[in-house]
Amino acid sequence: MTEKPFSGLLSPVVTPFKADLSPDIDRLARHCNWLLSQNCQLAIFGTNSEGTSLSVEERMEIMDALIDKGIDPKTMMPGTGCAALTDTVKLTRHAVEKGVGGTLMLPPFYYKNVSDDGIYASFAEVIERVGDTNLKIYLYHFPAMSQVPFGIDLIGRLIRDYPDTVIGIKDSSGDPENLANMLREYPDFHVFCGTEALLFENMRLGGTGCISATANVNPAAIHNVYANWQSDEAEALQAGISETRTVVQGFPMIPSLKKLIAHYSEDPDWHRVRPPLVKLTPPQETGLIDAVTAIGFDMPGIRK
Amino acid sequence: MTEKPFSGLLSPVVTPFKADLSPDIDRLARHCNWLLSQNCQLAIFGTNSEGTSLSVEERMEIMDALIDKGIDPKTMMPGTGCAALTDTVKLTRHAVEKGVGGTLMLPPFYYKNVSDDGIYASFAEVIERVGDTNLKIYLYHFPAMSQVPFGIDLIGRLIRDYPDTVIGIKDSSGDPENLANMLREYPDFHVFCGTEALLFENMRLGGTGCISATANVNPAAIHNVYANWQSDEAEALQAGISETRTVVQGFPMIPSLKKLIAHYSEDPDWHRVRPPLVKLTPPQETGLIDAVTAIGFDMPGIRK
Repeated sequence: MTEKPFSGLLSPVVTPFKADLSPDIDRLARHCNWLLSQNCQLAIFGTNSEGTSLSVEERMEIMDALIDKGIDPKTMMPGTGCAALTDTVKLTRHAVEKGVGGTLMLPPFYYKNVSDDGIYASFAEVIERVGDTNLKIYLYHFPAMSQVPFGIDLIGRLIRDYPDTVIGIKDSSGDPENLANMLREYPDFHVFCGTEALLFENMRLGGTGCISATANVNPAAIHNVYANWQSDEAEALQAGISETRTVVQGFPMIPSLKKLIAHYSEDPDWHRVRPPLVKLTPPQETGLIDAVTAIGFDMPGIRK
Repeated sequence: MTEKPFSGLLSPVVTPFKADLSPDIDRLARHCNWLLSQNCQLAIFGTNSEGTSLSVEERMEIMDALIDKGIDPKTMMPGTGCAALTDTVKLTRHAVEKGVGGTLMLPPFYYKNVSDDGIYASFAEVIERVGDTNLKIYLYHFPAMSQVPFGIDLIGRLIRDYPDTVIGIKDSSGDPENLANMLREYPDFHVFCGTEALLFENMRLGGTGCISATANVNPAAIHNVYANWQSDEAEALQAGISETRTVVQGFPMIPSLKKLIAHYSEDPDWHRVRPPLVKLTPPQETGLIDAVTAIGFDMPGIRK
């Protein structure tokens, strides 16, 4: 069984922007350090990070800057899958050279209805071109967003041909059957669920952890489920984090995460998103804060 | 009414690759020159060009190299819409500085179910940041592929606020009702249909022309429909190009276009595609050539 570079909880770290929409490295580093303090590692450049809204150069600069600020690259699982093969290779190579723990890789996501052979060829090209045994890939299965799914056969083919490189997956399908199927077929595969609503279930099935948007705002409670999934309290703890998830996802996810960080850290500049996303409307902002307040939500330690 | 930088026929020019999958500029320039000789202008970096499979740097280098080889930038309508705002700005600015006739712009295509406000904000940012009155944008409406459609209200808002910049659209929905609706609401908008099967219909409705994949292989006949759409022969000519289109689209489009160019130019190296696309299987290749031969198809003047 391959050593696990990551287990437990990761957050697709939301990316703060300055007024000119350039990445705000200081705020980002502060948020990364807070997440680490809550036992949450760093899936930077995920969907909730607006990763695909950042150029390859911006992503390399952010990674370098975070490392320069003292954040351990082993805690980072950057998203490096781009639409263009050459972009994916460049960004992935840079991440591996910087010593990241692993990369979370979207398939090329412009063309739809592509064949498994084509997706396989894409990953094979990236792996061969990067050509580094330190490359550890987590497949990013998010059919609703990428529209390019990883089927069970394709996953098996990648594991078979690149067993030391293709070591895990983030499953954002939201389908517990898919977690079960993957873990039945490939019990040593490092399976992360894409929502904490399935964390207890995923651990019970033999999964490795959870990479979830709402870990940006509720990391300690989610990690607590991971740490205690075998205890008698597990289902009650799971119910608690599922409730928070349900409340937050009643609002547009990415601007809501930013609004919650802005609100609880008393730092209103956190609210900005890059187009094509839009920030919450004032009624949505009020509704979100009222809704989380009603369930006693807080973000301890987030204030500067 | 805005002057028309483009009318008639454009081809999303297929991109040939070398054995290492780098762009093959010599073959590309040769194909561009053949297309121009057939009254077909150059929508480089479209969907059928595998444009999104090329990095921003690769696209800038290709553009520069084609211009260096003597191809008039005014004949080029490069695809410049990327997932990341900063990539779209960089590539679009470069294209405008090089003097292209216009750009064909996908919306940011990673996030799905984004709001019209978000798509509007994305285009507004690009237009303001490029900040050049020579920028002429054709919106690229391809809901089946981008999954991010341009609705009639959004189009109207962009035309109203940027009347000298947002001047046209390529409509790859395949829906003649959408052509009619746009031309009824915005009669001065430069509407190109995305398949020659709708060329006569689009011209009859007041459209400007056609930007079609199969223009890579059948440009003279398609241009002939454009040039003669008001003649008595128009419907018969339309039937001829529609038949060719129907036959070719019975096979995977992009590798089929490359196979046809390889076959008729007797240049087998044309066959390569970048992942996630795959080339035709041998039975598909035989089937395609047999099918086009059966309808008397040829590519006059394509041989070296």
